Amino acid sequence: MKKVGVAILGLGVVGGGTYKILTEHEEFFRRTQEVEISVESVLELNRERAIALGVPEEKIAGNIAEVVCNSDVDIVVETIGGVGAAREFVLDALNAGKTVVTSNKELFCKYSHELERAAKRHNAGLYFEASCVGGVPVIRTLLDGVQSNEIYSMMGIINGTTNYILTRMAKCGCSYEDALKEAQALGYAEADPSADVEGFDAAYKLSILASLAFHTKVPFAKVFREGIADVTKEDIQNGKALGYCLKLLAIGKQTHSGIEVRVHPAFVKEGHPLAAVDGSFNAVYISGDSVGDVMLYGRGAGEMPTGSAIVSDIIYAATHSENKYSTFKNTATGDKETNYVADFKSAYYFRLTVTDRAGALAKIAALFAKYNISIEELLQKSGDEKTATLILVTHETHEFAAKNAVARINASGLAHVESVLRVAQ
Amino acid sequence: MKKVGVAILGLGVVGGGTYKILTEHEEFFRRTQEVEISVESVLELNRERAIALGVPEEKIAGNIAEVVCNSDVDIVVETIGGVGAAREFVLDALNAGKTVVTSNKELFCKYSHELERAAKRHNAGLYFEASCVGGVPVIRTLLDGVQSNEIYSMMGIINGTTNYILTRMAKCGCSYEDALKEAQALGYAEADPSADVEGFDAAYKLSILASLAFHTKVPFAKVFREGIADVTKEDIQNGKALGYCLKLLAIGKQTHSGIEVRVHPAFVKEGHPLAAVDGSFNAVYISGDSVGDVMLYGRGAGEMPTGSAIVSDIIYAATHSENKYSTFKNTATGDKETNYVADFKSAYYFRLTVTDRAGALAKIAALFAKYNISIEELLQKSGDEKTATLILVTHETHEFAAKNAVARINASGLAHVESVLRVAQ
Repeated sequence: MKKVGVAILGLGVVGGGTYKILTEHEEFFRRTQEVEISVESVLELNRERAIALGVPEEKIAGNIAEVVCNSDVDIVVETIGGVGAAREFVLDALNAGKTVVTSNKELFCKYSHELERAAKRHNAGLYFEASCVGGVPVIRTLLDGVQSNEIYSMMGIINGTTNYILTRMAKCGCSYEDALKEAQALGYAEADPSADVEGFDAAYKLSILASLAFHTKVPFAKVFREGIADVTKEDIQNGKALGYCLKLLAIGKQTHSGIEVRVHPAFVKEGHPLAAVDGSFNAVYISGDSVGDVMLYGRGAGEMPTGSAIVSDIIYAATHSENKYSTFKNTATGDKETNYVADFKSAYYFRLTVTDRAGALAKIAALFAKYNISIEELLQKSGDEKTATLILVTHETHEFAAKNAVARINASGLAHVESVLRVAQ
Repeated sequence: MKKVGVAILGLGVVGGGTYKILTEHEEFFRRTQEVEISVESVLELNRERAIALGVPEEKIAGNIAEVVCNSDVDIVVETIGGVGAAREFVLDALNAGKTVVTSNKELFCKYSHELERAAKRHNAGLYFEASCVGGVPVIRTLLDGVQSNEIYSMMGIINGTTNYILTRMAKCGCSYEDALKEAQALGYAEADPSADVEGFDAAYKLSILASLAFHTKVPFAKVFREGIADVTKEDIQNGKALGYCLKLLAIGKQTHSGIEVRVHPAFVKEGHPLAAVDGSFNAVYISGDSVGDVMLYGRGAGEMPTGSAIVSDIIYAATHSENKYSTFKNTATGDKETNYVADFKSAYYFRLTVTDRAGALAKIAALFAKYNISIEELLQKSGDEKTATLILVTHETHEFAAKNAVARINASGLAHVESVLRVAQ
């Protein structure tokens, strides 16, 4: 039977989950996968944490050199996070010919070229299923499940923190601030929530997933990004009245003009499978030329789901000697020939406060028409004596046209645009 | 670049789709998968069909021997269906050392042991993603995506024909007969619909999926099976009123008492991700010990989605030289040590016509209590002067207790049980 020794760098939430799965399933993996997996080493500064998890003292390494020089270690799991020590240690492991399994989306997003170069040079494997959407095997699906397809588009809810916040705002009518506090109290959001709520986390993941889907390295810098901090409960309720749910979507599209990659809040029509993805659940909706629409749904984070992805990668690495790398063009800045679309197409939701009511609607409609923006739905809500609230949902138009129209309306004095949200189609 | 020659046996719907995908994506596969795939031979009795698809005449084989003796053919795709010629031809191909990719659920369900034996003997690969749930990579997910998990349960909507019929009955209030006729007119159901509506198709697939999930060959004969032909619009509407959708579910569970495998109509609570799977869409909901709940959703049948799964298998076969077989215990009748649970647990929905109204409810409740069946929900509908309709939803109980209670109530003269449906939990 094949024997594989594993080292785990960092025994935090995900590293701890990985340790538990590996040590509790040794017999199961022998029986079902015909592979004997043992944890040979861990690198964790907090020795007490390691000991509390049951790691034998002699397996706690003092430094990375001890890990990469350990001939019993075949696979190094990196669950440290960030791009400091994690990057250095992963390179050390690859340069020593160890296969690396990582959950680190920022590292893989920003340094995949460097890591893959090192891996190839030393014939080491490099696996990263756990970097995106926790235990949901979306990377395995893109590589080995729908690889026969030209992928047109992917739309994902790939950040659990923001989905939890938006779900609470929709279901309980609470404000962004209150929903965020609740998420922090439950451990779904960090004390500094910016990586999640500003869309960085989703953008790292989208960069990785879009690179695999579109077969070209999509650099992080190309991902358009808007977070959810400005979302109001009023807009969520207005959307609901029109039959929409608000989600932080990660959208990747392959169009005739090039690739679109963007992370922003967007309304999704009720009845679309993504609209039902609530709370901390995640999902990725992929459209391919042969397979049509496929959706993968599950828990996008957490000790055990992310540990599941890491251990699945370990087993895959132990049982496959080929297919060690991703297949997108592997350069630091992406392929210079790939075109990216900044002026993407979308439908839009606008909320306006109309300050001069008499005849204002006709003038606003004329202004939108000037930018070739046609209105699909319109809802007028009574305001005070002088003002009214106008909700507009447009047909598909261009991002720049929408932005120009907004600037023009604000300059006109007819109305003030309070919020602009995209509507996914 | 790796070169792979493919033969396709049978150019019907799925074989035709496969041919189109392969011939239209040659350059795409060279660029993205670094593999050159060419169709070297087809076996199709209807030569006109092959020619209409654009197959060059010289590539149309006259018999299976021509295909398996063709040294340009590395991979044989079988899309004939059934267990007659298909079985014979697949064995011929494997015995000649050709890797086989099949969409044939009946063949793989019934003869996987024989096929895998032949494949191993000749070092040929055997792939069958297309046998279950069309283009949705559920087999790849079980083998390479969640293989780190002990799977507790899977619940699937894995037959598009029956899901189309049940969706139409729910949305339009039409009868089973009318919905079936509509499905036949649209090509979703065969002229003889029994393989679908009686649950055979779903049972073949469940046998395959449960074998992979539970790591033991689950023979078709062990799958409990009930079709949808007796489903009434009345029960669907009653379920709706109680917040349930009716689906033909394929359920596999690993319990302390053994494995449960069953295909039957079942109510699913609205809000469960499976309840939203409508029309000809399919989904499989998998629960594992680490990953938690994962759902895969997409088109479960059709020329292009099933062709997508076949071509993904071809690419996988061309780029992986290991992992050619499934990993469940490979015997004709399954592992004799595996226990199967016939008296499974479920909640139940009963519709009763109460013939003797005075005091009947108390007596019926007492009768259920005698079988340890407790009632969760109760709905009484007015009937004529002498009768009333009673809808009961129970807490979880045992299948045999439910059956015994029904027999006892019918024998009592108090009421007649018009329908019994299970409620999934």
